[in-house]
Amino acid sequence: ANPISFIAGPCQLESRDHALMMAEKVAEACAPTASKFVFKTSYDKANRSSIGSARGIGMEEGLKILSEVRDTFGCPVITDVHETSHCAAAAEVVDVIQIPAFLCRQTDLLLAAGRTMKPLNIKKGQFLAPWEMGNVAEKAASTGNDQIMLCERGTSFGYNTLINDFRGLPTMAETGYPVIFDATHSVQQPGGRGNSSGGERKFVATLARAACAVGVAGLFIETHQDPDNAPCDGPNMIQVDQLATLIAQLRDYDALSKGL
Amino acid sequence: ANPISFIAGPCQLESRDHALMMAEKVAEACAPTASKFVFKTSYDKANRSSIGSARGIGMEEGLKILSEVRDTFGCPVITDVHETSHCAAAAEVVDVIQIPAFLCRQTDLLLAAGRTMKPLNIKKGQFLAPWEMGNVAEKAASTGNDQIMLCERGTSFGYNTLINDFRGLPTMAETGYPVIFDATHSVQQPGGRGNSSGGERKFVATLARAACAVGVAGLFIETHQDPDNAPCDGPNMIQVDQLATLIAQLRDYDALSKGL
Amino acid sequence: ANPISFIAGPCQLESRDHALMMAEKVAEACAPTASKFVFKTSYDKANRSSIGSARGIGMEEGLKILSEVRDTFGCPVITDVHETSHCAAAAEVVDVIQIPAFLCRQTDLLLAAGRTMKPLNIKKGQFLAPWEMGNVAEKAASTGNDQIMLCERGTSFGYNTLINDFRGLPTMAETGYPVIFDATHSVQQPGGRGNSSGGERKFVATLARAACAVGVAGLFIETHQDPDNAPCDGPNMIQVDQLATLIAQLRDYDALSKGL
Amino acid sequence: ANPISFIAGPCQLESRDHALMMAEKVAEACAPTASKFVFKTSYDKANRSSIGSARGIGMEEGLKILSEVRDTFGCPVITDVHETSHCAAAAEVVDVIQIPAFLCRQTDLLLAAGRTMKPLNIKKGQFLAPWEMGNVAEKAASTGNDQIMLCERGTSFGYNTLINDFRGLPTMAETGYPVIFDATHSVQQPGGRGNSSGGERKFVATLARAACAVGVAGLFIETHQDPDNAPCDGPNMIQVDQLATLIAQLRDYDALSKGL
Repeated sequence: ANPISFIAGPCQLESRDHALMMAEKVAEACAPTASKFVFKTSYDKANRSSIGSARGIGMEEGLKILSEVRDTFGCPVITDVHETSHCAAAAEVVDVIQIPAFLCRQTDLLLAAGRTMKPLNIKKGQFLAPWEMGNVAEKAASTGNDQIMLCERGTSFGYNTLINDFRGLPTMAETGYPVIFDATHSVQQPGGRGNSSGGERKFVATLARAACAVGVAGLFIETHQDPDNAPCDGPNMIQVDQLATLIAQLRDYDALSKGL
Repeated sequence: ANPISFIAGPCQLESRDHALMMAEKVAEACAPTASKFVFKTSYDKANRSSIGSARGIGMEEGLKILSEVRDTFGCPVITDVHETSHCAAAAEVVDVIQIPAFLCRQTDLLLAAGRTMKPLNIKKGQFLAPWEMGNVAEKAASTGNDQIMLCERGTSFGYNTLINDFRGLPTMAETGYPVIFDATHSVQQPGGRGNSSGGERKFVATLARAACAVGVAGLFIETHQDPDNAPCDGPNMIQVDQLATLIAQLRDYDALSKGL
Repeated sequence: ANPISFIAGPCQLESRDHALMMAEKVAEACAPTASKFVFKTSYDKANRSSIGSARGIGMEEGLKILSEVRDTFGCPVITDVHETSHCAAAAEVVDVIQIPAFLCRQTDLLLAAGRTMKPLNIKKGQFLAPWEMGNVAEKAASTGNDQIMLCERGTSFGYNTLINDFRGLPTMAETGYPVIFDATHSVQQPGGRGNSSGGERKFVATLARAACAVGVAGLFIETHQDPDNAPCDGPNMIQVDQLATLIAQLRDYDALSKGL
Repeated sequence: ANPISFIAGPCQLESRDHALMMAEKVAEACAPTASKFVFKTSYDKANRSSIGSARGIGMEEGLKILSEVRDTFGCPVITDVHETSHCAAAAEVVDVIQIPAFLCRQTDLLLAAGRTMKPLNIKKGQFLAPWEMGNVAEKAASTGNDQIMLCERGTSFGYNTLINDFRGLPTMAETGYPVIFDATHSVQQPGGRGNSSGGERKFVATLARAACAVGVAGLFIETHQDPDNAPCDGPNMIQVDQLATLIAQLRDYDALSKGL
């Protein structure tokens, strides 16, 4: 088994300068432990709680910036897609394509993403049991693309609340595909602030440690230099200044669980 | 207040002949009570549990058949859309556009559907609280289209199970938009059969009666002449032969709750 | 089938005068529809959220008052028991013994209550599926006492929230025992106020109407002349002044569902 | 911080010989890591799913055996109580008194148990949020007894299913009381076998590792020499032959999380 790698970056692609600055900080946070990472950010927040929330910088501009991030820092980049027609364009630039949780059952999107032959990170829908992700993966794999990751980001638990079932990690791993744990969306409180989602940043490390002890291939962590003023998912992103410490800690649990 | 109207038809558009036959049976079931109905069927099942399940007849052929159904029976027709690019084409034929529950947070789809200026039936996501539907409706309404219906079809309750919160009906009605109760998807057991969803048809009348007693603008009921052999959602569809009796019963509860 | 009867009264037995006053008001509310009722109140709140909450007047004094209520108004009375050793004493006075939801799996309590040969009202635990109540009833019935009612009062749904599954009413009725719907505890928000439970009184009529449309033997409704200042369960009790109107409305739905 | 200690033993006290044999095996499993343990077993299963299930050996005989176990192996012993009147007798023999999850809101039981001045292990009700356990502990602490442990054993998640919220461990720890993780009841499927509970033994180590990574004072693990034929909770108990290996593994995660 390999050490955990990380998918990390700000929820939203705010600007070229911000993306480059954040990628540099993520790279710095990963350096002490020589941790591999994929830089994550979204140029289009297509399913926000409210119409009044910022959508983002758009695909064309966004892909240009992601390309620059990759060239500058030599790191792979990931972004999410929301329309079948966007998959091909995104795949020309990004190294990994992400399927959002709400869309994980949309057959056409899975097929279009699969056909790019790029690695996919498919988030488990909040409305799905872990054992239903086998069928989801099979849709994507029917294209011949078997570079699939399955990502836990919480399951609906009453209203405005998500919960992680840690039994779901080994259950999803039974598919044979690597499992990623999304530590920051797992502490999201969907719709918890009326027009936007709340979150409990203080539990990110708790849940990430648990995931590493159970055993995962990677961690998904959204981070920002000033989460309380971020345009999106602020309440659940962690301070980028604390990322290196968290990563070092998680590497220890990972090493223990994998016997590294 | 008006008497409840119905959105009814087979889950999947199986063929021209089947659609015409089913529309005739639905019309017959509504006739004794002079109940209004919109004929519902889907020409594309875009989010099935498994890649191996039948997808449907496709948009072009499907819209042609829906058009014929409308001309033949003089009834309005409704279908669901899954891609922004399909909204305009669908709107040329159908009278009502439906937003699937999984997609109710996709801003672009809501905007594209809204811009057709056709009435919309937006299903509440299984992952959403009833009070979050105000934000969803606002996205669609931002196009200037205020012909919006909000539809309850169950909320995630543990794994492979949905539950209806009947407090959610008046909560959604506080938006000012009419509320529809989807009695057949509410008894669905998502993923309950491994590669397809299960369902408990025997509870359709129970839940539909409760909804009428609480007070709703309409009922959504999928029906089939042979549900046990239907290509989709068989376990939760009701026998079309039993539809007239159910409708008559529901009209009584509706009349009582609305003082008609 | 008989028309629905009611179990009604204040959550807590506050004093002799209060109990007599409330019983009179409940009797008056039932009179216009000639509805049968059992007067309910608790002399001991044995499982409150916080140690600082009022416990009540105690068993000895409480039973004396309940006896006086019965003699004065000629109505049967019900109270809940929390210890096996209290069943016999309670049974000397009350007409129906109630098993609290938290205690519905305590075999000894069910046996002791059953052995009094008084009718039992057993509340479904918030942690139980409706189909598990058959086993619960069987414990009580093993004493030879078959006067058992099963009562729905909500199921845990995430934190601090209850939800009613209306499919559970016919499911519990399959046992052959009459089913009661507790409309006021169903809108309780357990622990929702930190040191006490919250509640949403505004949904009591909504849920009670749904239950009558589905079909139940009786309704359980806690009521008070001034719920906002009641020592217990204020947020979910209804104003006793509104009880007659609610009862009349529910009788209509009941008559419709039972063909009376 | 101290290394995790264990509460371990068979669900049910089957006989004197069985208890002595199991205590010896638990002691042997703890010896290699010099792990402290409290021997757990129940002489009365007072809240089983069905009246037909075995209740146990009874209090008098049970306490005698527990006393012999303690004398023979020099280990503390724990058992659960279900009636206030049993607390004093149990306290004469056992070192720790356990409050069952279903009963964690019963004020009188908490007070009677607290007054014994024995350490208490209070299980969180399946129907309670973690933050409600502060009120529960306060009831017991009002007796002057501050030797309280709070124990996570799962929260209701839909029907017949429990889920652990690992955010609940630090939340309960904010009370200042040590937190125990019950790894075997957490994988219970309540009522999952109709007349008894099912369970998923294969997830015990997964969840226990996660709990140690998050940080707990102790682990509660039920174990048996032949779980598949045990009279109670067989599907979730682990093989006692595998206990030493599990304990050694958990000690490593515990050492990492506590910096030991």
